Amino acid sequence: MRLGVCYYPEHWPESQWESDARRMAQMGISRVRIAEFAWSRIEPEPGRYDWAWLDRAVDTLARHALEVVIGTPTASPPKWLVDTHPDMLPVLKDGSAMQFGSRRHYDISSPAYREHCARIVEAMTRRYGEHPAVVAWQTDNEFGCHNTLPSYTDAALSRFRGWLAARYETIEALNAAWGNVFWSMEYRGFDEIELPHRTPTDPNPSHVLDFRRFQSDEVGSFHRLQADLIRKHSPGRDVLHNFMGFYAAFDHYAFARHGLDVAAWDSYPVPRTEVLPLPEADKHRWARTGHPDVSAFSHDLYRGVGKGRMWVMEQQAGPVNWAPWNPIPRDGMVRLWTWEAFAHGAELVSYFRWRQCPFAQEQMHSGLNAPDDRLSPGGEEVSRVGGELRAMQAWAKAPMRSKRASVALLFDYEADWVIETQRHGADFDYQHFAFEWYSALRELGLDVDIVSARDDVDGYRLVVAPTLPILPDSVVDQIERGANHWVFGPRTGSKSDTLAIVEHLPPGKLKSVLPARVVEVESLRPSLRPTLRLDGIEGEAVRWREHVQPGAGTDVLARFDDGSPAMLRRERVTYMTACFDRVLLVAALAKCVGDAGIDATPLPEGLRLRRCGALRFAVNYGDRERKVPAPDGARFVLGGPLVGPIDVAAWIEED
Amino acid sequence: MRLGVCYYPEHWPESQWESDARRMAQMGISRVRIAEFAWSRIEPEPGRYDWAWLDRAVDTLARHALEVVIGTPTASPPKWLVDTHPDMLPVLKDGSAMQFGSRRHYDISSPAYREHCARIVEAMTRRYGEHPAVVAWQTDNEFGCHNTLPSYTDAALSRFRGWLAARYETIEALNAAWGNVFWSMEYRGFDEIELPHRTPTDPNPSHVLDFRRFQSDEVGSFHRLQADLIRKHSPGRDVLHNFMGFYAAFDHYAFARHGLDVAAWDSYPVPRTEVLPLPEADKHRWARTGHPDVSAFSHDLYRGVGKGRMWVMEQQAGPVNWAPWNPIPRDGMVRLWTWEAFAHGAELVSYFRWRQCPFAQEQMHSGLNAPDDRLSPGGEEVSRVGGELRAMQAWAKAPMRSKRASVALLFDYEADWVIETQRHGADFDYQHFAFEWYSALRELGLDVDIVSARDDVDGYRLVVAPTLPILPDSVVDQIERGANHWVFGPRTGSKSDTLAIVEHLPPGKLKSVLPARVVEVESLRPSLRPTLRLDGIEGEAVRWREHVQPGAGTDVLARFDDGSPAMLRRERVTYMTACFDRVLLVAALAKCVGDAGIDATPLPEGLRLRRCGALRFAVNYGDRERKVPAPDGARFVLGGPLVGPIDVAAWIEED
Amino acid sequence: MRLGVCYYPEHWPESQWESDARRMAQMGISRVRIAEFAWSRIEPEPGRYDWAWLDRAVDTLARHALEVVIGTPTASPPKWLVDTHPDMLPVLKDGSAMQFGSRRHYDISSPAYREHCARIVEAMTRRYGEHPAVVAWQTDNEFGCHNTLPSYTDAALSRFRGWLAARYETIEALNAAWGNVFWSMEYRGFDEIELPHRTPTDPNPSHVLDFRRFQSDEVGSFHRLQADLIRKHSPGRDVLHNFMGFYAAFDHYAFARHGLDVAAWDSYPVPRTEVLPLPEADKHRWARTGHPDVSAFSHDLYRGVGKGRMWVMEQQAGPVNWAPWNPIPRDGMVRLWTWEAFAHGAELVSYFRWRQCPFAQEQMHSGLNAPDDRLSPGGEEVSRVGGELRAMQAWAKAPMRSKRASVALLFDYEADWVIETQRHGADFDYQHFAFEWYSALRELGLDVDIVSARDDVDGYRLVVAPTLPILPDSVVDQIERGANHWVFGPRTGSKSDTLAIVEHLPPGKLKSVLPARVVEVESLRPSLRPTLRLDGIEGEAVRWREHVQPGAGTDVLARFDDGSPAMLRRERVTYMTACFDRVLLVAALAKCVGDAGIDATPLPEGLRLRRCGALRFAVNYGDRERKVPAPDGARFVLGGPLVGPIDVAAWIEED
Repeated sequence: MRLGVCYYPEHWPESQWESDARRMAQMGISRVRIAEFAWSRIEPEPGRYDWAWLDRAVDTLARHALEVVIGTPTASPPKWLVDTHPDMLPVLKDGSAMQFGSRRHYDISSPAYREHCARIVEAMTRRYGEHPAVVAWQTDNEFGCHNTLPSYTDAALSRFRGWLAARYETIEALNAAWGNVFWSMEYRGFDEIELPHRTPTDPNPSHVLDFRRFQSDEVGSFHRLQADLIRKHSPGRDVLHNFMGFYAAFDHYAFARHGLDVAAWDSYPVPRTEVLPLPEADKHRWARTGHPDVSAFSHDLYRGVGKGRMWVMEQQAGPVNWAPWNPIPRDGMVRLWTWEAFAHGAELVSYFRWRQCPFAQEQMHSGLNAPDDRLSPGGEEVSRVGGELRAMQAWAKAPMRSKRASVALLFDYEADWVIETQRHGADFDYQHFAFEWYSALRELGLDVDIVSARDDVDGYRLVVAPTLPILPDSVVDQIERGANHWVFGPRTGSKSDTLAIVEHLPPGKLKSVLPARVVEVESLRPSLRPTLRLDGIEGEAVRWREHVQPGAGTDVLARFDDGSPAMLRRERVTYMTACFDRVLLVAALAKCVGDAGIDATPLPEGLRLRRCGALRFAVNYGDRERKVPAPDGARFVLGGPLVGPIDVAAWIEED
Repeated sequence: MRLGVCYYPEHWPESQWESDARRMAQMGISRVRIAEFAWSRIEPEPGRYDWAWLDRAVDTLARHALEVVIGTPTASPPKWLVDTHPDMLPVLKDGSAMQFGSRRHYDISSPAYREHCARIVEAMTRRYGEHPAVVAWQTDNEFGCHNTLPSYTDAALSRFRGWLAARYETIEALNAAWGNVFWSMEYRGFDEIELPHRTPTDPNPSHVLDFRRFQSDEVGSFHRLQADLIRKHSPGRDVLHNFMGFYAAFDHYAFARHGLDVAAWDSYPVPRTEVLPLPEADKHRWARTGHPDVSAFSHDLYRGVGKGRMWVMEQQAGPVNWAPWNPIPRDGMVRLWTWEAFAHGAELVSYFRWRQCPFAQEQMHSGLNAPDDRLSPGGEEVSRVGGELRAMQAWAKAPMRSKRASVALLFDYEADWVIETQRHGADFDYQHFAFEWYSALRELGLDVDIVSARDDVDGYRLVVAPTLPILPDSVVDQIERGANHWVFGPRTGSKSDTLAIVEHLPPGKLKSVLPARVVEVESLRPSLRPTLRLDGIEGEAVRWREHVQPGAGTDVLARFDDGSPAMLRRERVTYMTACFDRVLLVAALAKCVGDAGIDATPLPEGLRLRRCGALRFAVNYGDRERKVPAPDGARFVLGGPLVGPIDVAAWIEED
Repeated sequence: MRLGVCYYPEHWPESQWESDARRMAQMGISRVRIAEFAWSRIEPEPGRYDWAWLDRAVDTLARHALEVVIGTPTASPPKWLVDTHPDMLPVLKDGSAMQFGSRRHYDISSPAYREHCARIVEAMTRRYGEHPAVVAWQTDNEFGCHNTLPSYTDAALSRFRGWLAARYETIEALNAAWGNVFWSMEYRGFDEIELPHRTPTDPNPSHVLDFRRFQSDEVGSFHRLQADLIRKHSPGRDVLHNFMGFYAAFDHYAFARHGLDVAAWDSYPVPRTEVLPLPEADKHRWARTGHPDVSAFSHDLYRGVGKGRMWVMEQQAGPVNWAPWNPIPRDGMVRLWTWEAFAHGAELVSYFRWRQCPFAQEQMHSGLNAPDDRLSPGGEEVSRVGGELRAMQAWAKAPMRSKRASVALLFDYEADWVIETQRHGADFDYQHFAFEWYSALRELGLDVDIVSARDDVDGYRLVVAPTLPILPDSVVDQIERGANHWVFGPRTGSKSDTLAIVEHLPPGKLKSVLPARVVEVESLRPSLRPTLRLDGIEGEAVRWREHVQPGAGTDVLARFDDGSPAMLRRERVTYMTACFDRVLLVAALAKCVGDAGIDATPLPEGLRLRRCGALRFAVNYGDRERKVPAPDGARFVLGGPLVGPIDVAAWIEED
């Protein structure tokens, strides 16, 4: 459990660096990320490098025993480079080209830009790769931010055609796979294919899905280009990237296979809650705290992406600047978010940023210090955490690997692309749907591991998949040979690998373990809400419902009031035929949790529990003091058995 | 009363064709539409035709006594053609060019594309024109769909200039007609004129209206190009086009004069109800049935366009894919819609589509069969209708020409363009307004013929015109020499042929039969609702109101509570000075209906009546069983005197 | 107090001109604006001028003793000019070029267009500059209308680079001032700088602010080009421009220094109320009258811009055409608006337009006459005002210079640009916020002078500044050496001249008179409304709140219920830390007004008072008769002590 901070020495007078480093160390900060937007200072003219200032900055930090994470500066190429290669600029879906003047003004497919990225990364890693203070490298910054993915450039088109040729080999195979006969969309060669945009009506969904896959691969290969150079010149250091919350434009599991030691992510709970498609009442209720499951969802997701290694690279430490409205977090939230991150297995919580920058785009984004260098309210909270960590001594330094949870939630990036390509109902959002399931399980007091739908889930008592339109073979294999319980949501198994309806109708491959035939599906306008009762609880379907005929051996656990089956089960496999409202979803999952032999601990509003290593944490987002479910006589290393509003407790709970 | 289906042999293995055809025939289907998206299979390379597969498909259908309707494939030109003529792509109002990848990716004004259309249609009609199974030809598919009209290409500009030169002869005449002096918009020659888009503020409305007329003519001449070839090579077959519901981007009456035997249209009541500007309460109430007047409105409109000959070329047969939300229709709706179409005079009800296609853009659009070839719920209902038709024997085969209704509703495409060009109030929509009047009349139990505002309406007891901004001379002539009653809505007679205010103020030409002067007009924000009472019923004006001074001989039938006249009448001519809310509109029309000597039959929610040939039909969209107004002892050929929810009855009612 | 009218002789048969002029004079109109859209008639071919018709038009007006205001026609260049210089067309922020077909189709930075403007203005001023009937010149028409500012052309970019080079001298200075190091946005030369648009995320706010300043200067120099020619060829005549209401895309105070004698503006209270970001309840309540403070705000603003000289160049005289909905004003409003304008110091109230034009874009915009030449209801009201003015005799002719009000409201165009560049909260609108303060003061019965934040405010008892992010030094100087009371709203003093956070934190320079430190700021979603009580009145913060630590000598006058200070004061300086809801704002300002020793006269709904010269006016926008606060025995020159709904009174109130 380490603290870190994002620091931009180039933004401040060099005279301030020494005191900055000293104060960081005093606060309990031990890691500092630098340099990821400094290209124009590192290479002020084409080919002329200026390392002197960065050498001094790294050395200053090192003198105070601070470990350094260097970011490659490829998210902000300088103007001279853009002027030399104007076709490196990204192009939006509507065909308009972006220009220089902010950041991320590059097309990830540009061959020229890739060359320059390799050049600058090679230069940086050669310079600092073996510096003893340097412990990790971050590639670029927040891939895809600001809607720069997908990019619709000529370079993207050219590489997409190559990608397709490699995937399908013959144009006939592609035409067949996409069903291009449908509207005379058949191509005679790969060079006839365009990017799937600016069509009078929807492009072929198979075309779109392959383009999304291609773009995802492009992000991976762009990262790999840098990761390989880092490995070569900076042996033994961690390679990471700082991902974003609720962002799925590329497959993070696949990305990780391109060279990643740690999945780092940037956590901004308050603006995230404002911009997610949550109900208005939730946005209001949690406006100053973030929704209690929003950060946890990403912690659990990225811990899976990093195969257990997860950092928070940027932690919100006060009000920010980028949501439609930007309220001040409630007192105590910065501390709460920090402990919550540790509870979910974060090795490092690094705050954004050391000091609020008074100029340029993010001047309204707070930091640990105000622009006048006094600690901000958030900075004061971090100091408190620093003290608490010191007081915890050994516990803070113990390996805090998360235990395998009892429940696994299967997450799938392709599922997001499939749903987005073919929502069928205007308000069907995959990530939000997965979040609803996650949140319901968390309200039941359960730890949840979010894992790839292609992972091995042996050892989990219960595996839930909100939806998996393209169902991997491995899932069915695991159901057949395993002993765990499974719950699937609607649309599961409905699509082939090329986004066609599966051959013998949905739920496709799932039929072998859950005989059923999805006869018809429907999306539901917000006012259409079919009702049912489950274990005495009244609930409604929202957004989506399927009419399913159960097959041999499949039981109907619940029916809608109009008679249509709502929950099906055969042995250890349960299928929900609709999206359920919150109350019904909690009831349905509680039933499955219980049937899987897991003890749930239904929690009051705002309280959440989480086991990590030998500790169990309780975090209280709510307004009332709560008693935590610690065993009598439990030893508390943080707080005590009563946890107040916006407070945290942790106690030892050996197996 | 025939059943049909849309079928795409090219989407399926040839081994399936025979069984498909056999099953169609068994279900009672007798007509099959094919080929309208098959260009890439008919001409896979420039100039190389492949007829073999289509020959076999037609012959397979013919073997099962199925009659064939061939669609020309010009709505989906193949990629090789687009690459040869990239300037054939359409351009949106914002100036952005569309590209290949879906359908309708062509500009209707492109000379090159017109040539290729003529070539492919000539080839097809030569090949199949005299095939005995071929009974009709459909040109293209849903002209204007996906907002491809108007198209703002260079070709459109060039032809528009020519069209204007032909219309105005001299530029001085055009400048005067458009009032171009207004903002120094005067042109020195036709070649200075641009398309009316991308102007800092509104372009001249006269300019816009002429552009809309030009585009409408372009659609007509594009169709005629094909119709002439069909006539030449396929004598005796019906020429038709499949129009859309609530679509007015071209003048369908004028179009029909370019060579049309049957007005076919594509009926999707559920998504149509979702996307029309109906009140939210109506959208919810009728979400699974479609609004009870939505299909009927188009039936009655297109029966008029086809001079009595109307087909439903594509009938929704289950849930579709293209509305924001796509619920499953209530059980029985596919059958109900079918009988309703026959009741309104459809010669054919053809379902879209034979089998749900599991790939490409419309995979979430149901058909009569599921992708696994089992009948869908809609398919089951069609089978039932097939049986009912067989049971009706002679009645099903009798000529079912609609009787002239007692009421004519005047419809005018130019009225739509005028209102859209100059809404004045943000929520004034011509088609929706016409629909409100139609719906009110239908709620009164009346049959309504929707006819062109330029038609002869002799023989109708009552003629209603929701609005006719550009009032044809023929209307005034008919009022003066006829004996029928007339009701006009606001804005009637307000505009000249070039979209200027009429010379002596509105209601313009109507003054000769209804002396009055429209002093001022206003559009009303939704919260502004002037009130009045009419025959004891309280109501409100919405969206639009006029302050009118009645002239000599004109009576004020009703006044708003603030004293402003609401209904004026002189002899047989009534004028409403505002848009009325539903309650008031029904009351006002009921009054006029009664005064015209017509017996109304006010109907309960969801019930509708319709006379066709010697039969009278009752269709019940509602949730309660209703008694139909059949004479005692009437002979029912379908159902009986009590018609249940989502059910139909028909009895013989000789004159 | 004069009446005027906008007249377009080129739109009407010459035979009508004489009667038009005679009727104008009879109605009491004495000034006529002409020619501002007549370029195509003045110069029908390149270089060929046709003066004859305009000579006759001016002479016709002069024969009836009407004074003429000539508008330069540069807002509507003819097509032939656009075809010669296609790069004179404006470009929108999204990069799309506009085209000919309406008006304002020019880029204010185009060198070629500026040349042609100079040419046509020189020709016109040479022709009419010394005509005895010509008393004033209006340049162009409504600069910036239809979102034509800013314009993103190549010409703008070129001139912007020059403007920046002149402002910063070296690129290093610019990089430092903008903080370009932030995201490697550093430039190596001025020719590397782009316009601040089409960036993946927000461009640097300093970049945007300088671009807004540049564009504002461009408007000024464009106007100056014409003003200088007018001065040269038409000595002694007033130079003016007709500004718009609630429009701040250029700095009108700075503009006035480019050569302006009178600030004229175009007053459309009803549509303005519809389009302003007012609460829905207000839009409904005042839908037919305009909000009672909407016109007054602009009167008081433009009176300040014109250094006391203000005209209403275009006064709404009936329903218009350009809002989403366009209701008919209530009877009496045209008269009320006229007297209200005089009460606020208008020298002239000129109606738009003489006669409703039946053709082209504004055919649905009413005038004093209907298209059939009968007086419209608004025209009747103007006739009545003409009679009232005649009856008032000397009072109508007396110099009606407004007295200095007791309260000055500081207005600042840069404040608008700063807030718009960096709203931080989605609904923070500077002009609306300033309007809320103005309206609250007016409800307290006070006259308000709106003055530039850079003006000398000596003599005002109370000076209020809703917000001044960039606080001029002169304000602090005046506080220190003056005796008046000051009230500042949140965000004041928060930004440097280059839109960075001020060096020692907000409120920046204000600290010298109000020691305090703004620790954190927040924008508030509409549902987040921190509460407080002030003098027993409950209220809420909306949109924005600051957490402020008061410094030595600064008192906390009010705190939010959560303890955070809401109002701070040190001696004569008060600071509100949040945006207050209406009730709270009125209470807070009432407190400050009282403490400043000013007598407030809280007014009932819809009633407003205004002193001008020796007269005091009461205007009643409301529905109930009200007693005006005239001294006993006051002599009324208009109405009497009871003023009815939609009526006006005026009495003599000597000092």
